[in-house]
Amino acid sequence: MCAAHANVQPNIAPPPDLSRLCIHTVTTRPWSLDEAIAHYALAGVSGITVWRDALAGDEPRAAGQRIRAAGLAPVSLCRGGFFPARAAGDRAAAIDDNRRAIDVAAALGAPLLVLVPGADPGQPLDVSRGQIREGIEAVLPHALAAGVRLGVEPLHPMYAATRSAINTLRQANELCEALDSPWLGAVVDVYHLWWDPDLGREIARAGAAGRLWAFHISDWVTPTDILTDRALMGEGCIPIRQIRGWMERAGFDGYHEVEIFSTRRWTQEQRAYLREIVAAYLAHS
Amino acid sequence: MCAAHANVQPNIAPPPDLSRLCIHTVTTRPWSLDEAIAHYALAGVSGITVWRDALAGDEPRAAGQRIRAAGLAPVSLCRGGFFPARAAGDRAAAIDDNRRAIDVAAALGAPLLVLVPGADPGQPLDVSRGQIREGIEAVLPHALAAGVRLGVEPLHPMYAATRSAINTLRQANELCEALDSPWLGAVVDVYHLWWDPDLGREIARAGAAGRLWAFHISDWVTPTDILTDRALMGEGCIPIRQIRGWMERAGFDGYHEVEIFSTRRWTQEQRAYLREIVAAYLAHS
Repeated sequence: MCAAHANVQPNIAPPPDLSRLCIHTVTTRPWSLDEAIAHYALAGVSGITVWRDALAGDEPRAAGQRIRAAGLAPVSLCRGGFFPARAAGDRAAAIDDNRRAIDVAAALGAPLLVLVPGADPGQPLDVSRGQIREGIEAVLPHALAAGVRLGVEPLHPMYAATRSAINTLRQANELCEALDSPWLGAVVDVYHLWWDPDLGREIARAGAAGRLWAFHISDWVTPTDILTDRALMGEGCIPIRQIRGWMERAGFDGYHEVEIFSTRRWTQEQRAYLREIVAAYLAHS
Repeated sequence: MCAAHANVQPNIAPPPDLSRLCIHTVTTRPWSLDEAIAHYALAGVSGITVWRDALAGDEPRAAGQRIRAAGLAPVSLCRGGFFPARAAGDRAAAIDDNRRAIDVAAALGAPLLVLVPGADPGQPLDVSRGQIREGIEAVLPHALAAGVRLGVEPLHPMYAATRSAINTLRQANELCEALDSPWLGAVVDVYHLWWDPDLGREIARAGAAGRLWAFHISDWVTPTDILTDRALMGEGCIPIRQIRGWMERAGFDGYHEVEIFSTRRWTQEQRAYLREIVAAYLAHS
């Protein structure tokens, strides 16, 4: 952890081991799903969050079996969502696609489908927000039937035009409260939310409601680019350990999921990168 | 205005003329201050916000006289602020620099100095926020003595690490309320704040307190880069007219200031660009 953070999170111990460490397949994108499974397991990682592109024609039930056979937990499926669209046909297609994603998560044995809410720069944010709510309402019965939770992930405001009209945890909490389903909760990603002065309070609010369902970690470096420049824990300025402390005080005892999009890291030899991930996790999370 | 916005701001008329149009010198960065003055005046623009780099050794009192002689109002000086720093010496230097900027604004005849709050990625946001408050407190007596208002400009959360630990208008309002000086108010820039679901409410709050001091316009295009990719009004997804309506309902009757950083636009022939700015202002603001 950089010196800047040490003084504000003195009472939070580093992770004692890898029993809560989960990695998203997109983090090691050059690997196939089976390479990721094998290398994560060998490194002592405990969980895996599967991105749909990593399944690519694979049969999700069989993939889930291979994941569990390697001693890994299938933590979640990424990603559903992307509900807003100007054309009603496109919104209906998104709802269908989310139902398919729920089925994939169920077959995989993943208890959670992560929803990236979506946005459409050709319409007002309020309209997109209404369509997000309608989309989630439309798929909730399918989630219940499949036994798969849905996790709303607010994205950083720099994605408000294209990827998510939900940009703070408060918005996600309000959406969950409005829909009030035991199958709907929130995903906290430090990269998206670290800047928010309300973050601690909103984590407590989600936790009190039993809706704190996932915790994604990475770091923010400067200068940065907007899409694929996330960094390893400890390389940037996010007070990851402090935020983890807020999560734990709010009752969260789930996985710490490393989700890093990095053009630079994807070109690196991935086994060496995995060793760096594990070391950074233990030292800076 | 793009079709997406027409339906949500039906009652707000376009600007009737150029009497409220102000342009920031950085928008037409290739021009010297005197070129900007001459071309803005010729185009019927009413105000100019001067960036300190455009003064570059110029004598501000004389520059102010040339601005007024051309029939332009010196609307504000950009920019002071950048208070946070780990080293106390750097913070003291920032305070000194802000006092100098206040003197420059006074000599120029600009009633407002825009403060970009600043941030330091090597320290927690809360610490930076405290230093911003301390820095502003330290320079407020100088602002009062000089008769120059200070405007806190919250920046988009994508700049939280490096340029501003104040990222919402609510934070700016809370800071102004805490310091409670008639010389301290808020600057609303649509590029930084358009995504915020609280924006309308916080504009009303600032207006009710008499603290709504400037209105900056540009647009957000997608895909975008993080620093110099702002767009002309109407080219992107910001509901500029709706936000202007909120400003006016909150009592704001100041200038509409075009502030666009655009690597692409700076390479364009600037007289043609200025004509595009004026047309975009009338059509999409």
